[in-house]
Amino acid sequence: MIIVMKPKAPRASVEHVVSVIRENGLETHLSEGKEVTIIGVVGDKTRLSDVNLQIAPDVEKIVPITESYKLSNRKFHPEPSAIQVGNTKIGPDNLTVMAGPCAIESEKQLLSIAHAVKTAGATFLRGGAYKPRTSPYSFQGLEEEGLLYLKRAREETGLATICEVISRESLACAAKYVDMIQIGARNMQNFQLLREVGRAGIPVLLKRGLSATIDEWLNAAEYIISEGNPNVVLCERGIRTYETSTRNTLDISAVPVLKSKTHLPVIVDPSHASGVWEYVAPLSRCAVAVGADGLMIEVHDNPECALSDGPQSLTFNHFSQLTEELRAYAALQNRAFKEAP
Amino acid sequence: MIIVMKPKAPRASVEHVVSVIRENGLETHLSEGKEVTIIGVVGDKTRLSDVNLQIAPDVEKIVPITESYKLSNRKFHPEPSAIQVGNTKIGPDNLTVMAGPCAIESEKQLLSIAHAVKTAGATFLRGGAYKPRTSPYSFQGLEEEGLLYLKRAREETGLATICEVISRESLACAAKYVDMIQIGARNMQNFQLLREVGRAGIPVLLKRGLSATIDEWLNAAEYIISEGNPNVVLCERGIRTYETSTRNTLDISAVPVLKSKTHLPVIVDPSHASGVWEYVAPLSRCAVAVGADGLMIEVHDNPECALSDGPQSLTFNHFSQLTEELRAYAALQNRAFKEAP
Amino acid sequence: MIIVMKPKAPRASVEHVVSVIRENGLETHLSEGKEVTIIGVVGDKTRLSDVNLQIAPDVEKIVPITESYKLSNRKFHPEPSAIQVGNTKIGPDNLTVMAGPCAIESEKQLLSIAHAVKTAGATFLRGGAYKPRTSPYSFQGLEEEGLLYLKRAREETGLATICEVISRESLACAAKYVDMIQIGARNMQNFQLLREVGRAGIPVLLKRGLSATIDEWLNAAEYIISEGNPNVVLCERGIRTYETSTRNTLDISAVPVLKSKTHLPVIVDPSHASGVWEYVAPLSRCAVAVGADGLMIEVHDNPECALSDGPQSLTFNHFSQLTEELRAYAALQNRAFKEAP
Amino acid sequence: MIIVMKPKAPRASVEHVVSVIRENGLETHLSEGKEVTIIGVVGDKTRLSDVNLQIAPDVEKIVPITESYKLSNRKFHPEPSAIQVGNTKIGPDNLTVMAGPCAIESEKQLLSIAHAVKTAGATFLRGGAYKPRTSPYSFQGLEEEGLLYLKRAREETGLATICEVISRESLACAAKYVDMIQIGARNMQNFQLLREVGRAGIPVLLKRGLSATIDEWLNAAEYIISEGNPNVVLCERGIRTYETSTRNTLDISAVPVLKSKTHLPVIVDPSHASGVWEYVAPLSRCAVAVGADGLMIEVHDNPECALSDGPQSLTFNHFSQLTEELRAYAALQNRAFKEAP
Repeated sequence: MIIVMKPKAPRASVEHVVSVIRENGLETHLSEGKEVTIIGVVGDKTRLSDVNLQIAPDVEKIVPITESYKLSNRKFHPEPSAIQVGNTKIGPDNLTVMAGPCAIESEKQLLSIAHAVKTAGATFLRGGAYKPRTSPYSFQGLEEEGLLYLKRAREETGLATICEVISRESLACAAKYVDMIQIGARNMQNFQLLREVGRAGIPVLLKRGLSATIDEWLNAAEYIISEGNPNVVLCERGIRTYETSTRNTLDISAVPVLKSKTHLPVIVDPSHASGVWEYVAPLSRCAVAVGADGLMIEVHDNPECALSDGPQSLTFNHFSQLTEELRAYAALQNRAFKEAP
Repeated sequence: MIIVMKPKAPRASVEHVVSVIRENGLETHLSEGKEVTIIGVVGDKTRLSDVNLQIAPDVEKIVPITESYKLSNRKFHPEPSAIQVGNTKIGPDNLTVMAGPCAIESEKQLLSIAHAVKTAGATFLRGGAYKPRTSPYSFQGLEEEGLLYLKRAREETGLATICEVISRESLACAAKYVDMIQIGARNMQNFQLLREVGRAGIPVLLKRGLSATIDEWLNAAEYIISEGNPNVVLCERGIRTYETSTRNTLDISAVPVLKSKTHLPVIVDPSHASGVWEYVAPLSRCAVAVGADGLMIEVHDNPECALSDGPQSLTFNHFSQLTEELRAYAALQNRAFKEAP
Repeated sequence: MIIVMKPKAPRASVEHVVSVIRENGLETHLSEGKEVTIIGVVGDKTRLSDVNLQIAPDVEKIVPITESYKLSNRKFHPEPSAIQVGNTKIGPDNLTVMAGPCAIESEKQLLSIAHAVKTAGATFLRGGAYKPRTSPYSFQGLEEEGLLYLKRAREETGLATICEVISRESLACAAKYVDMIQIGARNMQNFQLLREVGRAGIPVLLKRGLSATIDEWLNAAEYIISEGNPNVVLCERGIRTYETSTRNTLDISAVPVLKSKTHLPVIVDPSHASGVWEYVAPLSRCAVAVGADGLMIEVHDNPECALSDGPQSLTFNHFSQLTEELRAYAALQNRAFKEAP
Repeated sequence: MIIVMKPKAPRASVEHVVSVIRENGLETHLSEGKEVTIIGVVGDKTRLSDVNLQIAPDVEKIVPITESYKLSNRKFHPEPSAIQVGNTKIGPDNLTVMAGPCAIESEKQLLSIAHAVKTAGATFLRGGAYKPRTSPYSFQGLEEEGLLYLKRAREETGLATICEVISRESLACAAKYVDMIQIGARNMQNFQLLREVGRAGIPVLLKRGLSATIDEWLNAAEYIISEGNPNVVLCERGIRTYETSTRNTLDISAVPVLKSKTHLPVIVDPSHASGVWEYVAPLSRCAVAVGADGLMIEVHDNPECALSDGPQSLTFNHFSQLTEELRAYAALQNRAFKEAP
């Protein structure tokens, strides 16, 4: 941590800051320039977390030097992590494809989709049973009934399964039925839920908040890991910007940025990012080429009649064309693109 | 709802859309232009909510006409609402000032602040007992102990009290101690929590999400009201933009926009919006002048040592100077700025 | 300038950075922490502007300490500036109201508006003769003919006049007819034009770019002042965000931020910021209350038939109601709100 | 164009709107719903461009149906365009790689870089002679001297050359020396310059504005094409968002969005988008995979000493590794990646 003093700050103000730092058991290094004095802080900065030095007299600004996240930080864990889920692994050697409907609508629908996406090469079945919807008057999901269908689909196909949870209750319920749970964008900073997921220990896909910075996102992961659950996978799903030609703006640079900052695997959701099915194939190719560890793609047996997010869902045909195309890109990245056993 | 067809869409595509609409019990009006055909839908559009017409062949786009929120919509409730909380009222005739520390740190601190803000003209005491913090390693609040102090402060001063809740448990606990609860920006789309607040019936201050649109915000209010709780007050607290000279960007236009779209009262939080105490006074004046029903302001006995958000907190002196100044602005808006009894 | 090294950077990397700095004639201060080494640079940092130290081995980041703008910086010019334009002054003692049509359409129209806004209290007549329009097929302005009308309106009413320029040619032409020129949002970083305006010496209103940071804006002002023209007034006109209920998002906090960073006067344009005439009155009140030195407001004799930006224009009636209302707010700010002589 | 009336708008208001439309020589279709009446406009809407119907009594909103750009619109020109520049072609069958320094610093430097990038597979040499810089105190470019070096580099290597222009004068000068000119982000809506580029006829690379929407960008292209110059290539270079871990946010979805809306070629600049050289390789791969027609990449002989943008520049080694890697991605997209003759 560095404290930059205002130009020509009086000696007394500099000494006040220095004394506050020392009272908290830390050391200082002074750098006195022609215009400004800079105070470097040496030692464990968490001791200063209750002191608001930026409003001490004549302080211009405080510059943090070290990140607040530790367990997810690549500096302290340089090797990329692989997360085991069911009989599959998400991480540097694989390209993981998660596919399925936005919302689970019926057992028949889900099984039909599960078989189709498995055939095309997916190893994960996704399906929403608890849907966070902007309006209270929209379809909110089948809840436990939907989870039951996911369990059956896993038994029939061997696919690993994933479902979003939105509360302690849905977490407790989902943990009985699925292999991995998802924290959606709207709950990325629902810190209570993050802690509970941390205690539950189940593998978790943590989607990026609608306008979360990468630092906030890694701090959200830190909430989960610091409760004892290291099985965290990050999912870029687009951020909110002024551009309206896509539903969100896929921040594809987040993949290499995350690869430099964290050891956690990163997957990309081109369906929610764009909101338009025609863009899902090119964005999937680009996610693989940029180095993502996987994809989450919406697939529906009849998008025109989907109860949720139909416009961004692929048909079975489009999905199997896409996975066919992706094999070559996965090979260029030295990633296995294996089917479920 | 209007369906715009692509230029030169074949007759069969137009007829397909028309037949889908009619099958769902609605009527259509066709407008055939030189370049495009437009289909107006007449009747209750919720019947179409499970149909994704935008991906029907040759559909260019769907234009919604009516808002999805009803109970918070000013179209159906033209008079501005006033919300009774304790012995005070938030609404068109009053300027409500809520003040207090970001986080409650001790009983002594809270009582000292409560007396000071009451003397200066506040009618509400705010204080955080459950703090959503970006990093798991930051101070997270005193929880029930803090609520107890709020209760004592209310008994001593007569101030109404407000505290943020972050989960079903904290809601149940807070409802026993305080007059009004707050849903923070990070939980604005925690729909599970919104429903529970709706069922609890307690007055609620709903802060705008970090990058929520006004429509999403009013839909979040709709979640609460549709569960039977009409006592919702909205709080603008800044949105996320590219500009970094303030912590968030106070969207002051949101006040007149909300006044035109909803009957719910609107207050402004200049402390969280700017993150800098020097900007709190000018932004408070401007919030009153633009027509806000109140303000939420952070006040601390010793901002330099605050455990949370010290840099944006006012001292007692600055706060009482500010309320003195605000009286003239409240008078220009024909708002009473009464002290607690 | 501070150089932060990566954790455990080898001694050789630190020494490389230090030697580069010293070769450029500057001194260094080392602060060696447990985790990181920090190098403070002492002296005239412009000597380092051609050296990209952030890519030297093991450099984590460079933290700038001093702003790149000097002549517009309040640190070196603490007193607020007042800018004389014609027979009026923009600055701390006055509330300046600029009013008029978005685009000049005819002599009759402009004179009629000029008389109306003067009667209501404006001291400046605005009117566009060169219009930057998104589409090449929209009305682009009357050019020199419009400037001639502005000159006549000044002769008839005594109002100071202002007009946007978009090129060297329009600048040369406008300088012959009007008292102040405007650089619009789209040209805020047209550095060639800024330099020419600097050389022309005419007072200039510099609008904020669509998504310019405050630092970029002050650097744009620096382009003008560094060519010898100190007569710069800044105009906040809304920034681009994700929110669509207003055309832009008025960044009202920019006013107090600018007041702390620069001595230049700041005015607010609520018409372009909101794009909706109903919001112009509340946003004007709030701009005065926050401390702005003036307002730029679109007024039209018949907004429904305006050739440009009608929806945000006030009628004569609405404008005179607004100025009536603003007198009380100006008085609270100790600003004179004088009519033109 | 559709006009949506307010709920229960009186008959007179509807008739007023209808009569205004008819007076302008257009026809209307009425769609009377239970809640709202909608008026469709049939015919050439440019006739209504001077009428502001959205402020006519009881009008709720106006919904545009057709885009304002025509010549760049894929609806009227379904085949993708290929643009001939020098002896190379930018378009659907090729992957065009433009490479070179941000700013031209000396003849020796430019020739050295030109030979290196040619060897690695680039067909275009880029180099800035006129640099738009945020601060007036930064290096602004060698101007005509730099253009002369570009000409020599073309003579020596056969590479096509491209240089940014920032004014009428620099355009006139550059047109004598280079094969293609570039309009930078800050000048994307410098409409005067766009028209002049249109009249000059020289091939042009039009970079996206810092926060331009895709519609604004295509309208900017329309300015150039409507003056008679169809040789326009678009360049996505990142947009401004709240995220600060990259200099801008590369909007990779813009590539498929543009492919659906326009026939013009699209290239991607990962260097300016990210501002970090380590991210340039993964973002280049992803741009090819998503379907871009080319790349613009900064390459420097000694990035640590570059006078501009060194941190995002590749060394010769990194660049030739990257082009080697890109060959396989180009092949998957059926694009030739040919060296200059």
